[in-house]
Amino acid sequence: MPLNRRFTLARRPHGNLLPDDFKLVEAPTADLQEGQFLLRNIYASLDPAMRGWLDDVPSYLPPVALGDPLRASTIGIVAESRNPDFPVGSWAAGFNGIELYSVGIPGFTQPIDPNALPAITNHLSVAGGAGLAAYFGLADIGRPLAGETVLVSAAAGAAGSIAGQIAKLKQCRVIGIAGGPEKCERLLRRYHFDAAIDYRGKSVAELTAAIRAAAPGGIDVHFENVGGNILDAALLCLRPRARVVLCGLISEYNSKPVGARNLFQLIIQGARMEGVIVTQFYERFPEAVAALTGWLKAGELVIDEHIEAGIENTLPALLRLFDGSNTGKMILQLSEV
Amino acid sequence: MPLNRRFTLARRPHGNLLPDDFKLVEAPTADLQEGQFLLRNIYASLDPAMRGWLDDVPSYLPPVALGDPLRASTIGIVAESRNPDFPVGSWAAGFNGIELYSVGIPGFTQPIDPNALPAITNHLSVAGGAGLAAYFGLADIGRPLAGETVLVSAAAGAAGSIAGQIAKLKQCRVIGIAGGPEKCERLLRRYHFDAAIDYRGKSVAELTAAIRAAAPGGIDVHFENVGGNILDAALLCLRPRARVVLCGLISEYNSKPVGARNLFQLIIQGARMEGVIVTQFYERFPEAVAALTGWLKAGELVIDEHIEAGIENTLPALLRLFDGSNTGKMILQLSEV
Repeated sequence: MPLNRRFTLARRPHGNLLPDDFKLVEAPTADLQEGQFLLRNIYASLDPAMRGWLDDVPSYLPPVALGDPLRASTIGIVAESRNPDFPVGSWAAGFNGIELYSVGIPGFTQPIDPNALPAITNHLSVAGGAGLAAYFGLADIGRPLAGETVLVSAAAGAAGSIAGQIAKLKQCRVIGIAGGPEKCERLLRRYHFDAAIDYRGKSVAELTAAIRAAAPGGIDVHFENVGGNILDAALLCLRPRARVVLCGLISEYNSKPVGARNLFQLIIQGARMEGVIVTQFYERFPEAVAALTGWLKAGELVIDEHIEAGIENTLPALLRLFDGSNTGKMILQLSEV
Repeated sequence: MPLNRRFTLARRPHGNLLPDDFKLVEAPTADLQEGQFLLRNIYASLDPAMRGWLDDVPSYLPPVALGDPLRASTIGIVAESRNPDFPVGSWAAGFNGIELYSVGIPGFTQPIDPNALPAITNHLSVAGGAGLAAYFGLADIGRPLAGETVLVSAAAGAAGSIAGQIAKLKQCRVIGIAGGPEKCERLLRRYHFDAAIDYRGKSVAELTAAIRAAAPGGIDVHFENVGGNILDAALLCLRPRARVVLCGLISEYNSKPVGARNLFQLIIQGARMEGVIVTQFYERFPEAVAALTGWLKAGELVIDEHIEAGIENTLPALLRLFDGSNTGKMILQLSEV
């Protein structure tokens, strides 16, 4: 049996993630039960949501247990198999962990066609959680109409860049908020947003003024990934009956939550705020993947992936999500193909 | 022309309302233009929303100007008229002010049938803003299904008591949150709620535990009138796909807003929070009034009205909304019928 390497949780983090919160351990892989298979993980998706799974609080998933590897979506190649649906050498994707080998459990891991998308890593970006959250967040919650104005925060990030581009495909005026001039430039040039706002150094009042300048008529749909000051400002710019898609709140994952201080704006505008959690749309994943793949192949959707390599680089790669130094969907390569 | 008395805004309040924020002034009533009429206000509705209209911030209505009477829904009897649709002696209801006489403007004031409801004041309670907010908040946002669990805050208040009773009519399990044992008793005995929680003296953790004890399976619909700790606790008890009807946030109208600190729960549960502002449902008022009136006349809906008398008592009556010492819909009687 091959030797496994696992990036495990050593203690529950408080605030920012620290090296001592984690431990890279080596252990033999377990014997396979009938129906199981051993997946050699090639790529893992690194997502802001992983931070929340480390806390011992009630959530939609149990917290990662101390000593367990960090939970993550991975794609890999079947290395050993006691399941004829997952033959050795075939590709599969699933909700596994940051480890070189995961024991695949049917139902939690699905076979994937390595030729279905332009790059195999696209299964973790455009056809992964980020793409699905953008798709369902807009299709089911935001429901922007042609001509409406859509605001996106963390707009250069994985979910935000896809959400903004989908809104453009739906003939909306799209305004993105991102950190720094390079990202703002990317919103305009690469994702073809109509306007970009650099949030850095701006107070809530300044952010509000910037949004109002870019959208004098107000915001019909806001796709929120950040929270804090950005959400406070966005709420002040809503139009009547606006929809706020709550995809993430990355600004508060490492700190005491501040939530939505300008909540009263929802009453004033008769507006809605709704969380998007892709697992609730499980049965409609094929619809979303077909739409996203179609746009990608037609060149109507551009996807950026930021790939770091090596399980020993898990923490620095994860931290890029929180300091914003990633350029696109964060993916960690665990093994060579 | 009769002498008017008006309860006017003398300065913008900061925090709690103070006597010096207001001034009771006497002035002659203005001459009527063609199409106008003079309404002798008999009753005025006192609502938490009136507090917000005193602040000079962007809202769904312009702020009350300094020197103007406080804006309020009133019902009264036409005293003089230059409009054949509003003959002298007929009743009318409208969005007017805390003053003995208002100049009625067609479109903003409607004739009412004084015999349409069991009591004339019902036009300001069950058929007024409180009843409409409860009706549309549940019918359009909460949409509780039979067997679902509905939580209501400020449940002994005007909107809350109606919302909870509508939820009972829809075969839901209904839990109310109120301040003090008398109000909790009223929820159970008079409004037939299934459970009542006294929020006084309880931390967020204690409130959360109390809600979980009353609703072990979680909350499907939360009708929120309060905000702050109560909303924090309610958010921690949501079921997947729960709906939070944001009707009011009375805990923060006199202070810096805290908003929804446990906002992340909306993502975890794929839940929705939506503001209800009755003006957006204007065209469907007849539907709501017909339903509410039907329940009231059938004895399926109980309405409590707390009537104080005298324009000079406006401030103490208003303050009852904020200290919770009212028992039912706050109404101020301005004149004798």
